[in-house]
Amino acid sequence: MASPKSWVPIPPKSDFSIANIPFGIITSRNSQTQKRPAVAIGDHALDLLAFSKGNGFSKLPSVDVSVFEQPTLNDFAALGRPVHREVRKYLQDILSESTSYPEILKDNAELQKAALLPKGEFKNHLPMKIGDYTDFFAGRNHAVNLGSMFRDPKNALQPNYNHLAVAYHGRASSVVVSGTHIRRPNGQILLDPTKPTEPTFAPCRFLDIELELAAFICKPNDLGEPIKIKNAADHIFGYVLMNDWSARDIQKFEYVPLGPFTAKNFGTTVSAWVVLADALEPFRADKLKSEIPPPKYLTEERDDTVYDIKLEVDLTTPDGGTTTISRVSGKNLLWSFPQMVAHHTVGGCNLGVGDLFGSGTISGTREERDDLGSMIEMNQQGKREIQLAGMDVRKFLKDGDTITIRGTCGGEDGALVGFGECTGTIESAVVYD
Amino acid sequence: MASPKSWVPIPPKSDFSIANIPFGIITSRNSQTQKRPAVAIGDHALDLLAFSKGNGFSKLPSVDVSVFEQPTLNDFAALGRPVHREVRKYLQDILSESTSYPEILKDNAELQKAALLPKGEFKNHLPMKIGDYTDFFAGRNHAVNLGSMFRDPKNALQPNYNHLAVAYHGRASSVVVSGTHIRRPNGQILLDPTKPTEPTFAPCRFLDIELELAAFICKPNDLGEPIKIKNAADHIFGYVLMNDWSARDIQKFEYVPLGPFTAKNFGTTVSAWVVLADALEPFRADKLKSEIPPPKYLTEERDDTVYDIKLEVDLTTPDGGTTTISRVSGKNLLWSFPQMVAHHTVGGCNLGVGDLFGSGTISGTREERDDLGSMIEMNQQGKREIQLAGMDVRKFLKDGDTITIRGTCGGEDGALVGFGECTGTIESAVVYD
Ligand SMILES: [Ca+2]
Ligand SMILES: [Ca+2]
Ligand SMILES: [Mg+2]
Ligand SMILES: [Mg+2]
Ligand code: NI
Repeated sequence: MASPKSWVPIPPKSDFSIANIPFGIITSRNSQTQKRPAVAIGDHALDLLAFSKGNGFSKLPSVDVSVFEQPTLNDFAALGRPVHREVRKYLQDILSESTSYPEILKDNAELQKAALLPKGEFKNHLPMKIGDYTDFFAGRNHAVNLGSMFRDPKNALQPNYNHLAVAYHGRASSVVVSGTHIRRPNGQILLDPTKPTEPTFAPCRFLDIELELAAFICKPNDLGEPIKIKNAADHIFGYVLMNDWSARDIQKFEYVPLGPFTAKNFGTTVSAWVVLADALEPFRADKLKSEIPPPKYLTEERDDTVYDIKLEVDLTTPDGGTTTISRVSGKNLLWSFPQMVAHHTVGGCNLGVGDLFGSGTISGTREERDDLGSMIEMNQQGKREIQLAGMDVRKFLKDGDTITIRGTCGGEDGALVGFGECTGTIESAVVYD
Repeated sequence: MASPKSWVPIPPKSDFSIANIPFGIITSRNSQTQKRPAVAIGDHALDLLAFSKGNGFSKLPSVDVSVFEQPTLNDFAALGRPVHREVRKYLQDILSESTSYPEILKDNAELQKAALLPKGEFKNHLPMKIGDYTDFFAGRNHAVNLGSMFRDPKNALQPNYNHLAVAYHGRASSVVVSGTHIRRPNGQILLDPTKPTEPTFAPCRFLDIELELAAFICKPNDLGEPIKIKNAADHIFGYVLMNDWSARDIQKFEYVPLGPFTAKNFGTTVSAWVVLADALEPFRADKLKSEIPPPKYLTEERDDTVYDIKLEVDLTTPDGGTTTISRVSGKNLLWSFPQMVAHHTVGGCNLGVGDLFGSGTISGTREERDDLGSMIEMNQQGKREIQLAGMDVRKFLKDGDTITIRGTCGGEDGALVGFGECTGTIESAVVYD
């Protein structure tokens, strides 16, 4: 199904074609400081509070427009997937060349002026209030790569890996929106690994990235009431890109036996625009094949429950040189997000609206090793340099480096469904005296 | 310093003497359903919303009484420790036999009727809105006991244990108030441990408790700005008892390499009344001696930074028989809560008002093994039965069992500082088809 053309100019390579309509939270750069919902269309943001106040939703009277007065998307998300679908479809109509209601916005210069903000006149904020954040480990290629490096290529995966969606609870407070600077953490690291009880307190030397997709939850469940796999997709609002910054040397000393803690909780960056689950429907793809059938409570009716998203990672050095250090498809997951929902709640854990699920690092399997989601995989545990533009090299991140993740679905110019940027720049560590 | 007597009758063994004044959130059982702050005094709750509306705080004009209109204690907590101290002292005066202001409450029958609710006429709720919950592992005797059972008594502690406050991020959404029933979780367990890739999906068979203390945070820090050890105590609002229910068999299969997940996230119970840090001051005790000096960023100026709290665990079987299965002091920690605050934020992680920190399981070292904080320690990894009243026995919890944790400081009748109960009853697992 070809997308309609929009009367709003859409740059051919824009992530935000009319086929997308992702939701975010904005403030105006120079005037209105109230946080409010918006959708992205080409290089513009449509301010949904202004649009709603200007009777923009008058042809969709069923929708409770008070959700567009909120400083997060939580209340909109809580309306449920049928409403997200309806609102997205309505906004696609409003923004299309052949709109059914030209008087609402297309021919309404006053409302356009009030609600359609060009790039540079708005600023994005964290789209949801996150109650809890969970990071999964569903990128099996990454798990295999790490297990091969740290243990044994023949036994790369732990015995539980193919049976359940391995995950840990992450730190919700330090999830930040794209563009937020990240300070290099201090911590205890083993400079001499042969002396495992003599750590040194110092700034992290092995500061890494993790290329991930992440989903926001829109439908809660009660404590003690698991979400069954057949209903799990109804609980997913939409998706963002995520960089789970990781301090490998701090992690190495601290993580046995209870998992990563200060190695991960100093910051996690997500992209600003939430791409609705519905917008990704045309890009479904099969997930990675499992060697064993999953248990019944994780068995899905179809295999194509992940998405073919072209993911790219750019590293920009302080002098401004940019190198794309990874290109990989988002379909490289063993467990889908609905499976993560079913597993997370299997013991009765309650999810809340706004909860964030990370996929785990997404890596490919190509021989050339240019499709990896973390630097520790690219540098083969410190054994090789990652080659950058201008003969620069890295093993891990230096102060002033910027990482930018991008993700796009589809190939037709002017009809792309993408995520915008997930970017962050590394600042120097706090100096302890 | 002897406590003043209260004009409110205080049962001699009450946890809530005038020396305590713990804060909580209540609703009235039969009428007023609005959640609101209260303090406990003997068998009564003083409703702070009603007290404030009845000009109860008129002699303390500096305090912003709007915090007592909130459904959680977060806004009160956010006023900071000097204000908590002032309000507690003021309420101690108001409630004392020799109050400076008898007209406020002691001689004001009308306000007593409105604000002083007897036991049975109010219900407690979760005292704080918890943004993030972190569970530490600071009970070194417990860590030694587990390490000795699972690995090697000579190398019971991991290399990191004495160097940093080991912890993992827990699940905030499933922290519940005392009295909430807990459903036994389902999960994947290894019925035959020699076949580590053949798990069975079934209700947890090894359902355990963890006896813990927990602290609520009252003062936030910004991302990238660690809290230094010398300021850490200012960030702690007060303390509750905690039962970190644990599914040992589910944990065993799932926890390598990222830590416990569904084995812990099905419910965590906290007591309802927050005992302010100031109320515990007279009960300071030395923490456990470390074999090595802690790193500088975790070095405290004094050793007595934990509390001598008499903790007890009762197990009540479905037929009503109750046995005290553990008695141990809360001082059995290697790391104090201020040290936990400093370590949690060392890499820049931001804390929020209402965040919850668990101590980790608190066990003693007595030969008789009646001072242990978990059943897996009591049953020596399934090797022995825990003897209960009436010749009943347990290795782990059965459906219908109730666990009640109590904690009290001091010994003088009518002057105790205690926590009330932290209790929960096990319900049968959800039946999956
Ligand atoms: Ca990750
Ligand atoms: Ca615990
Ligand atoms: Mg992170
Ligand atoms: Mg728990
Ligand atoms: Ni009375």
